[in-house]
Amino acid sequence: MKRGFGSDNHSGISPEVLQAIAETNTGHALAYGDDEWCAETEALFRQHFGDQAQPYFVFNGTGANTLSIDLMCRSHEAVVCAETAHINVDECGAPQRLVGCRLLTVDTPDGKLTPELVATRLHGFGFEHHSQPRAISITQPTELGTLYTTSEIEALADLAHSHNMWLHIDGARLANAAVALGLSFRQMTTDCGADIVSFGGTKNGLMMGESVVVLNPELDRDARYRRKQMGQLYSKMRFVAAQFRAYLATDLWQRNAAHSNRMAKLLLESVSNIEGVEVVYPMQANSLFVRLPREVWTALQQDYFFYDWDEDDNVVRWVCSFDTTEEDIASFATALRQRLAEHRK
Amino acid sequence: MKRGFGSDNHSGISPEVLQAIAETNTGHALAYGDDEWCAETEALFRQHFGDQAQPYFVFNGTGANTLSIDLMCRSHEAVVCAETAHINVDECGAPQRLVGCRLLTVDTPDGKLTPELVATRLHGFGFEHHSQPRAISITQPTELGTLYTTSEIEALADLAHSHNMWLHIDGARLANAAVALGLSFRQMTTDCGADIVSFGGTKNGLMMGESVVVLNPELDRDARYRRKQMGQLYSKMRFVAAQFRAYLATDLWQRNAAHSNRMAKLLLESVSNIEGVEVVYPMQANSLFVRLPREVWTALQQDYFFYDWDEDDNVVRWVCSFDTTEEDIASFATALRQRLAEHRK
Amino acid sequence: MKRGFGSDNHSGISPEVLQAIAETNTGHALAYGDDEWCAETEALFRQHFGDQAQPYFVFNGTGANTLSIDLMCRSHEAVVCAETAHINVDECGAPQRLVGCRLLTVDTPDGKLTPELVATRLHGFGFEHHSQPRAISITQPTELGTLYTTSEIEALADLAHSHNMWLHIDGARLANAAVALGLSFRQMTTDCGADIVSFGGTKNGLMMGESVVVLNPELDRDARYRRKQMGQLYSKMRFVAAQFRAYLATDLWQRNAAHSNRMAKLLLESVSNIEGVEVVYPMQANSLFVRLPREVWTALQQDYFFYDWDEDDNVVRWVCSFDTTEEDIASFATALRQRLAEHRK
Amino acid sequence: MKRGFGSDNHSGISPEVLQAIAETNTGHALAYGDDEWCAETEALFRQHFGDQAQPYFVFNGTGANTLSIDLMCRSHEAVVCAETAHINVDECGAPQRLVGCRLLTVDTPDGKLTPELVATRLHGFGFEHHSQPRAISITQPTELGTLYTTSEIEALADLAHSHNMWLHIDGARLANAAVALGLSFRQMTTDCGADIVSFGGTKNGLMMGESVVVLNPELDRDARYRRKQMGQLYSKMRFVAAQFRAYLATDLWQRNAAHSNRMAKLLLESVSNIEGVEVVYPMQANSLFVRLPREVWTALQQDYFFYDWDEDDNVVRWVCSFDTTEEDIASFATALRQRLAEHRK
Repeated sequence: MKRGFGSDNHSGISPEVLQAIAETNTGHALAYGDDEWCAETEALFRQHFGDQAQPYFVFNGTGANTLSIDLMCRSHEAVVCAETAHINVDECGAPQRLVGCRLLTVDTPDGKLTPELVATRLHGFGFEHHSQPRAISITQPTELGTLYTTSEIEALADLAHSHNMWLHIDGARLANAAVALGLSFRQMTTDCGADIVSFGGTKNGLMMGESVVVLNPELDRDARYRRKQMGQLYSKMRFVAAQFRAYLATDLWQRNAAHSNRMAKLLLESVSNIEGVEVVYPMQANSLFVRLPREVWTALQQDYFFYDWDEDDNVVRWVCSFDTTEEDIASFATALRQRLAEHRK
Repeated sequence: MKRGFGSDNHSGISPEVLQAIAETNTGHALAYGDDEWCAETEALFRQHFGDQAQPYFVFNGTGANTLSIDLMCRSHEAVVCAETAHINVDECGAPQRLVGCRLLTVDTPDGKLTPELVATRLHGFGFEHHSQPRAISITQPTELGTLYTTSEIEALADLAHSHNMWLHIDGARLANAAVALGLSFRQMTTDCGADIVSFGGTKNGLMMGESVVVLNPELDRDARYRRKQMGQLYSKMRFVAAQFRAYLATDLWQRNAAHSNRMAKLLLESVSNIEGVEVVYPMQANSLFVRLPREVWTALQQDYFFYDWDEDDNVVRWVCSFDTTEEDIASFATALRQRLAEHRK
Repeated sequence: MKRGFGSDNHSGISPEVLQAIAETNTGHALAYGDDEWCAETEALFRQHFGDQAQPYFVFNGTGANTLSIDLMCRSHEAVVCAETAHINVDECGAPQRLVGCRLLTVDTPDGKLTPELVATRLHGFGFEHHSQPRAISITQPTELGTLYTTSEIEALADLAHSHNMWLHIDGARLANAAVALGLSFRQMTTDCGADIVSFGGTKNGLMMGESVVVLNPELDRDARYRRKQMGQLYSKMRFVAAQFRAYLATDLWQRNAAHSNRMAKLLLESVSNIEGVEVVYPMQANSLFVRLPREVWTALQQDYFFYDWDEDDNVVRWVCSFDTTEEDIASFATALRQRLAEHRK
Repeated sequence: MKRGFGSDNHSGISPEVLQAIAETNTGHALAYGDDEWCAETEALFRQHFGDQAQPYFVFNGTGANTLSIDLMCRSHEAVVCAETAHINVDECGAPQRLVGCRLLTVDTPDGKLTPELVATRLHGFGFEHHSQPRAISITQPTELGTLYTTSEIEALADLAHSHNMWLHIDGARLANAAVALGLSFRQMTTDCGADIVSFGGTKNGLMMGESVVVLNPELDRDARYRRKQMGQLYSKMRFVAAQFRAYLATDLWQRNAAHSNRMAKLLLESVSNIEGVEVVYPMQANSLFVRLPREVWTALQQDYFFYDWDEDDNVVRWVCSFDTTEEDIASFATALRQRLAEHRK
């Protein structure tokens, strides 16, 4: 299998991150977060998200999203999200099992919720037969590679708060969004009124590390117990903290995200003019969605791993990573051209 | 806080493990376990546990134990375990929340179940008002630092199987037990009739890595989905596989465990003759439990972190690690003598 | 509040049912179903559903539906159902909390699933990130008052079985369907290949009583324990059995359902020609859905309780019951005409 | 199977209760509790338990206990209770599955908790690895037929409140306790500082009806949604309200409980002097526990159904009911004498 565009978690570890792990590997430290690396890294999160931010490190995106939902909702409540949301489609039902709540999904043209779309699910308040809407969850950038503007996020936060609801942002690739929009994390989250964020690191160069970042102190209740009970408490936590420190204390998060975004643009430029390739969503971060003849994408998958996004519609997804190279793109574009040429014969 | 005996997860990463991570950090790999490192490491598990063994890597001990229980029991069923079992005491109720089942606990003199003790909980079969006993869970070495012999494990496996139940071994420190008993993993588990094992690595030199090892193929159903839904599926899984490969392909597991066991013996020798120190359980692996005057252990905790195990009974726990040094022990013993001397004045 | 068309659970108890309770109130009986009334009534269920049928009495529809789902699915699996399904909309998230699984919903024109609609959700088999489709659940008659023909049910059963899935029928009003279609319960369920049925009694004259009827013996595992653990085991069970006996040993189920169906037809005839009243779904059982000017239905609700079904679309629901009278209909139609007349002024 | 002493749920329905159901069976009523019978009955509960009391009717004891626990605890919290508590032993793990929390059990000599016994489980506050103690649950009368005095309940309430915990009373047979102690419900619950009560009716003459009575308004949050989601919301709720009205508006609760208590005393007198019969707990309500030779109790079970309470210890349980007669007792005592005589031969 050649290097390709399967996902940004096919890449490895940023050298700076690996070095940070090695440098932290000195002597003993208290477990479960009571160490100086964790304290320093928590302070870094506050620099990036605002003074009230409280991070809770977890192992993976499922952990970050389900803990976020768990802090927002009880089982009789519900989260409004896009039909395409990762929490809906790609967690094998983790929110349902671990929190016991419903997800109220909305079809969207581009993976983005709007106040109008959300409003279609805001009914039944006070009616005991219906799960009570309690949170809105958006993904930034979305699972379709599109971006919310800050005013779009603000509008959703306002809608949420006007209904006694919370706004959650699934930011598994938040750095890619921040770079694309030219904004700090704080500007995209806290300043827009978001209440809680799943902040990803693994897809942008960490070996392993995600964090729930509680922005609204009202949600900062029992999080330590809930994290532990959900199996997301890491004993040697300094080694996650060290990764996030390397990521956030320097411009590493920015460099990595800028690179993968730039590579995605290069990929877009390299393939969008090829006859037979149809780009289906605006390419705004590091994921590209294209429609191809079925024979072409299935043939291409013999050499390159990537996901068919909508098999019925012949849409596939290509993702660039912090370590994607121009050569990767050039050879992939060549292969694509070949497969298309074979197909046209 | 000085280097001490708080837990074997206060230590860092074995150099060989860190090197293995670095060496695995080359290029791209498929995520979620579909890579060659994972395949090779799974084969290593089969060498250590027998051909039928199937490992499922998870993040931590809570993950390993709850996934093991989940594969053995449905919510109306129950696990018989010692009152002191980690799954009972130290998971913040994870089995109850994630699996929904009961734990039927038994008081033990030394952390070890016996067929006679287990039998006291084996009733109510077929009675719909009672949770149905479905598994026995033991810890090897136990939470009190004691060991099961193979014949003791066999007897429990036989008892389990004669009641249509399974035998689970929580092996967070299984390497310490194997070294202490001079046995292979297989001899202590598969050959004794165990059905499933939580196999730990983090406490013996890994950065992070535990594994559910399914020994009985009847239990190997739906494990991939259950692991995912419980939030225990790691995307860049090669980096856990690489750690286990370094651990199991060489004698690293043995060397590390032998060292911590030897240090524990040295610690025992260094303190057991001190007046005022009472060893309360046979020290058979790498954990030592002693009774001390309250003023002494609380004073000692000002310089050294360690857990009071039974505050009412003035019993504290000291654990040695793969990186514990003779100097650590000497200086700790000196401090202990000093605190005791101050106390006697 | 006047007698009206709010729901068929606004009615009381059929006199025959009340008499059966009274007649069963003699002396002592073993609890939890080990009595002769229960045994006799279970035999009656087998007469109605086929020899392999095994009923489990529960308290209410939520209990019947969640126990049915629990017997079909584990938490990582999923149930395909209509967006309008009661299990999706009206259980306050009970399936999610009690079973932990996902519901994969499909928009339908008339509340009815078809193989084509279901097929849109049948993907991701074997992919651990996706909940695995394991059951199809239909409601007969649907929540929109429409009916499945036997060949439509057969087609869904065939589709389910060809994907190693089960077919569940939510039959809270199954008697109304049976009467409308002129079929026995068996012909509509077992003979069509259904695997499990939620069989309702409360809405058709019972004081309280629903039953999970397991048609496929493969699903008849652990049901007694699951029912107990879910809080659906009734101690004095003879008093539910007695109600079902009165219901099924005579033609009571038929008479009551025929009456409410007939009343619904009369209601339809009485209002469908009134200007301003638009019937929105084929009226095939005992529920009528009409679109009315908002001022009219809200005004009408001052005197009569009924549910707005789709507030945004001004669709309301009227349900006839076993005790609805021709006078009820006449006076309601009169009030409706008046409100419409006032509205037109 | 002869009339006997298996349980007080082997009895039927008090005639007054059946009549109340019949009298309520008039016309239509709004479902789910929005009717005048429910309103009136709720007011009756306030007369009996104090102005702040809010009842939530449920179907059975499992429902009442799990909803009570659910209102007091989240899944990472725990309930301290006696090892013999019904919530621990006889719910097939319902609290674990439905709430996800732990029960911290205590061995007791007589089924009764004391502050000293509870205190043994009150540790680990603030330690994220341990479930956080959040409630104390006692049963009145206990599962062993013993009674708490009001000062004993007060002491437990004080202990609970001093640790930010709640006091729950499982009152499945609360009327028997009230009569035995000569107290009102309020004196035994609200006035002692209890926060929430599972109030039973089924075992004392109702056809079916239990109620969670929330005494502390702080716990009265989301109860309607939680009840619905847990499958405990009854549609034709007037028929439960009517039963409780008949029970609480007259002295029916008192008469029935007084009768079963009196019969239990008569049973005690009739058997306690028989050689070979050993009464093992103080008989303070309507349950009698005796130790008998195994051959005797198993022989007796051929004619009479009753539960062996502790098979290993040859202890069995006999319960009197509101409809137990003096003849029942006389013939049972005769049979017991005969079996004992046969045994002595």
